[in-house]
Amino acid sequence: MKYKIATLPGDGIGPEIVDQAVKVLKAVGKKFGHEFDFTFAVTGAAAIEEVGEPYPEATHKICLESDAVLFGAIGDPKYDNDPSAKVRPEQGLLKMRKQLGLYANIRPVTTFPSLLHKSPLRKDIVEGADFVVVRELTGGIYFGGKGRSEDLKSAFDNCEYSTEEIERILKLAYDYAGKRNKRLTVVDKANVLATSRLWREVAQRMEKDYSDIETDYMFVDNAAMQLIQWPKKFDVMVTENMFGDILSDEASVITGSLGLLPSASVGKETSVFEPIHGSYPQAAGKDIANPVATVLSAAMLLESLDLLEEAKSVRDVVNRSLDQGIVTEDISGDHKAYKTSEVGDWLAANL
Amino acid sequence: MKYKIATLPGDGIGPEIVDQAVKVLKAVGKKFGHEFDFTFAVTGAAAIEEVGEPYPEATHKICLESDAVLFGAIGDPKYDNDPSAKVRPEQGLLKMRKQLGLYANIRPVTTFPSLLHKSPLRKDIVEGADFVVVRELTGGIYFGGKGRSEDLKSAFDNCEYSTEEIERILKLAYDYAGKRNKRLTVVDKANVLATSRLWREVAQRMEKDYSDIETDYMFVDNAAMQLIQWPKKFDVMVTENMFGDILSDEASVITGSLGLLPSASVGKETSVFEPIHGSYPQAAGKDIANPVATVLSAAMLLESLDLLEEAKSVRDVVNRSLDQGIVTEDISGDHKAYKTSEVGDWLAANL
Ligand SMILES: CC(C)[C@H](C(=O)O)[C@@H](O)C(=O)O
Ligand SMILES: CC(C)[C@H](C(=O)O)[C@@H](O)C(=O)O
Repeated sequence: MKYKIATLPGDGIGPEIVDQAVKVLKAVGKKFGHEFDFTFAVTGAAAIEEVGEPYPEATHKICLESDAVLFGAIGDPKYDNDPSAKVRPEQGLLKMRKQLGLYANIRPVTTFPSLLHKSPLRKDIVEGADFVVVRELTGGIYFGGKGRSEDLKSAFDNCEYSTEEIERILKLAYDYAGKRNKRLTVVDKANVLATSRLWREVAQRMEKDYSDIETDYMFVDNAAMQLIQWPKKFDVMVTENMFGDILSDEASVITGSLGLLPSASVGKETSVFEPIHGSYPQAAGKDIANPVATVLSAAMLLESLDLLEEAKSVRDVVNRSLDQGIVTEDISGDHKAYKTSEVGDWLAANL
Repeated sequence: MKYKIATLPGDGIGPEIVDQAVKVLKAVGKKFGHEFDFTFAVTGAAAIEEVGEPYPEATHKICLESDAVLFGAIGDPKYDNDPSAKVRPEQGLLKMRKQLGLYANIRPVTTFPSLLHKSPLRKDIVEGADFVVVRELTGGIYFGGKGRSEDLKSAFDNCEYSTEEIERILKLAYDYAGKRNKRLTVVDKANVLATSRLWREVAQRMEKDYSDIETDYMFVDNAAMQLIQWPKKFDVMVTENMFGDILSDEASVITGSLGLLPSASVGKETSVFEPIHGSYPQAAGKDIANPVATVLSAAMLLESLDLLEEAKSVRDVVNRSLDQGIVTEDISGDHKAYKTSEVGDWLAANL
């Protein structure tokens, strides 16, 4: 089969790590007799510099025409402390999410036994934690009206959710829970927010249609605590955009394997696959960044195309590389550290 | 001197733990020759049951006439899963914050050496962590317009901040940092939210007036990670209401001493002092809850009245009780567990 992969390296370490995932996908193509057709396009600060726009129309078109999008990272510190900047790399990310209708961000949080010592949590607390955070990605305060009052002395951001948006993401979360351990935790702030009360109302209605799934409800502040105190209790957690941003990042560091965690952002037409770790500008160009999160994102990409055996072969070779210590400096400990490109070469060669 | 203390036990374990703080304050009065005049008043679910209102006018009047408010906890699970409930205990808390103008919530996060083994974090990560979270408490999405669309199919919550509100809380945070290690971390989401960009603008302006303080800026998702990965880096963290709710609760569990952490909510007229742990309904009436967080809240209350020596004597007796194992079951480990009231009696007797 032939597949079109829009390939968006983005900023910082994006290009280096995406290169490794491309190597691995090419090896998959060779082994299983598929053709992956990679079309590269710019986003983020790189796109601002090239065409003055962080998610150019040309890039969007390439994504729309693709079977899946492989994404690196977006972000450049030079825009962070300039509240007056008119165009920001992150706007490209938000525009991409909106225009491609990427309504669900899925982040599996896995603990790798060989990396448990890197976790900031006690081993007995984190060992065996294995859950998925599902974050609503195209609604809420991210996309509501926002701006300044006329005298510029106050600012506002509006949070909005419709029943349809909530149903759509809960359905996906319930389906995910159904394929896993059949537990869903709905996280909100229903004791304060009207949008959260709507979330809870919709969930309480849908709960009845998923009687094989155990649903529970948790306030966001409590969830932020439970993630640290007892991460093993979670199976699938679902929440709105802003809470999901905070909780999914919190969740990503408890296992000590931030550099290994992939994500999928699911859309109606096409979906985007990217590592969760961001653009890590300090490491850009040094060939030291960990490519595994991006390679595992490629595995999720293969799953989305129903190439399950292919995906498994990618996961297997990654596990072998970890077992054999073919890893970058962030996780090599006292052992030899391999370069980004060396890890990519090894994975492609040993698939 | 004579001091009027409004005493609001609230729900769940509130009454039991507030009783112990009252005992300790009475002992302080005796030792230092002060008179503390405690006027009790209802709030929360208890007040709903009694007068149909979670923060009754009579309670408000008592608070207004007091030099300080000693508060237990609010919240009853029977309201949590009923999105249609018209009156909720938490509304009482929010009304109290608004009506008393409690614009700043201050939460010192301290690690107690004898409790380090209770921390979910690795000892080397958490040992020595000592910082303060300052949360804006009367603005933002908590108090903006909220509700449903006419067809009830969507809901909204508006977040708003004025320059004045931001300046007021940043000033308090800077003053706090000035008395500590002179570092302030301003947490926002300036890459997405207009309100956050105003926060950052105001902070960048004020930074110049506090040249002895090192200011840095952090996105909320990153802060949620750093709190776990490297809590020792923080001195004072300041943020808006919703982010502060999440981050201060996250921060409170990293030390393993949730039952020991106090808080102050600073207002223009009077301030409120309360443990951070909430109403813990499962333990209510069992005489097992840890009273130390409330007793240390009483120490913060004394400091707010400029009774510094008195506050120190409370902190000292608490430390002695921890050293000698006069503690409740949540932290007693393999040793004998004391009852809530026994710990209170011991603290009062040994002050
Ligand atoms: C860069 C930023 C706009 C983005 C977000 O907040 O969604 C990022 O933090 C993420 O989680 O993908
Ligand atoms: C009970 C709730 C309304 C409250 C809040 O969100 O402010 C609580 O979580 C807190 O932090 O004091």
